[in-house]
Amino acid sequence: MTIYEFARRIILEAGQNIKDKLKLELTIETKSNPNDLVTNMDKETEQFLADKINQTYPDHRIIGEEGHGSDIDTLEGVIWIIDPIDGTLNFVHQQQNFAISIGIFKDGEKYAGFVYDVMNNNLYHAIAGKGAYLNDRQLATLQSTELKRSIISMNPNWLTKDWTKDVYSPIVKDARSARSYGSAALDFVFVATGIIDSYITLRLHPWDFAGGMIIAEETGAIVSNQLGEKLHPLKSNSILVANPELHHEILNVYLMNYKDELENLHQGMFSSR
Amino acid sequence: MTIYEFARRIILEAGQNIKDKLKLELTIETKSNPNDLVTNMDKETEQFLADKINQTYPDHRIIGEEGHGSDIDTLEGVIWIIDPIDGTLNFVHQQQNFAISIGIFKDGEKYAGFVYDVMNNNLYHAIAGKGAYLNDRQLATLQSTELKRSIISMNPNWLTKDWTKDVYSPIVKDARSARSYGSAALDFVFVATGIIDSYITLRLHPWDFAGGMIIAEETGAIVSNQLGEKLHPLKSNSILVANPELHHEILNVYLMNYKDELENLHQGMFSSR
Repeated sequence: MTIYEFARRIILEAGQNIKDKLKLELTIETKSNPNDLVTNMDKETEQFLADKINQTYPDHRIIGEEGHGSDIDTLEGVIWIIDPIDGTLNFVHQQQNFAISIGIFKDGEKYAGFVYDVMNNNLYHAIAGKGAYLNDRQLATLQSTELKRSIISMNPNWLTKDWTKDVYSPIVKDARSARSYGSAALDFVFVATGIIDSYITLRLHPWDFAGGMIIAEETGAIVSNQLGEKLHPLKSNSILVANPELHHEILNVYLMNYKDELENLHQGMFSSR
Repeated sequence: MTIYEFARRIILEAGQNIKDKLKLELTIETKSNPNDLVTNMDKETEQFLADKINQTYPDHRIIGEEGHGSDIDTLEGVIWIIDPIDGTLNFVHQQQNFAISIGIFKDGEKYAGFVYDVMNNNLYHAIAGKGAYLNDRQLATLQSTELKRSIISMNPNWLTKDWTKDVYSPIVKDARSARSYGSAALDFVFVATGIIDSYITLRLHPWDFAGGMIIAEETGAIVSNQLGEKLHPLKSNSILVANPELHHEILNVYLMNYKDELENLHQGMFSSR
């Protein structure tokens, strides 16, 4: 079994565990706080995946949202970057529209990405260089679009803050339309499938983007920070993902008008995970 | 067969027609413009529904987005208010996340509402006074929430316009989070199921809200315009739909700070369909 096949097996198992647990919680109509539920499920899911990986590949290293690998700062060997539940608020409020995300790197090179939309039973997956898939269907290479004919995804909150609204409002104004779905991992794979043409957000952690980045790039999407720089898999960063023409347009026609402001933001915010 | 049962049958048939047509279009990999596809499908679907209604109930009247009943300005008798494809951009770009919406009124009183999420095969439906359903499952009465613990739905575009950003930004800022899904009919039923706690938008036509309003009100949601006034089923209006506590909070703590501006907007925009 390859690492890819192993990862595919354990992410599906982890998703099944979440579904079973949610069904049980709903069945017994627990009065417990939904925030506790997600906290527990986050930790349990990360631990489940970490235990499986450690048993099979004791020399692999793991970075996770819930605390694994917080001391890792180099890229040698095999590194798994895991978000056990991406889209936490959707999980709490909707019990759907959340995902498990895994990105695997070998000696700093992309190896494989997985984003599992658990409740819709959609597994997005890719091996670097071999194309991206939604379940058994290979995803087509992205077609280029202009902003005025594009649907972009952006959390409306960025349009309400004094220090970001001037940067992002022109992009939303000029796009054909804007959406907000509440899960970064799903936004990446929605770009990969063409559901949206771009996803723009100001700060993601490695576990939010590692899996989705590898999948999106396999469809020809350009993934960078908002200064146009490549993302480092161990560092938090801003995000601009889009098909090539649209990435170029958003970066050069819009974001570069605020280059100084964005550089200041990046210096303050992105020195660590 | 009751009018409700008849409506349920024909909305499902209309959805199946759309699915068949989409499958055919995708199979033959047409080079046709997707905008033409939606224009044709909109018209065909409205005509299909209108023909069925006219054959069975020749005395019923029909108002549709695609032109039926544009001369109707009174509420006597049975009136069907139809949106053949709500969420047009989602239809064009995503081929999913759109809905057929039908609201039926008898002598000005609500009778039944239907919102059919075609590609997910989810039929939301209600007879006034008898509860709302998602497929065969009855929807629970909504629980009240405060804005700071609520997920609201709003198109980010309202936060970029000079004449609306001041009105809506504070609501988005203070909400727990914001989403945007791109179909008004689906936003109404997402409030009914608790996927979101409120949907706020500045201008909808009767066919955008007629079906969803009847369903949402059956779960205890309050549906009004942004001045707190009841919606007239034949007139365009602004929209605030939410559970009772949240509706009260958004209306009185936020929107009423801009009462004069909203009244001016309403006088200019909502004198007709």
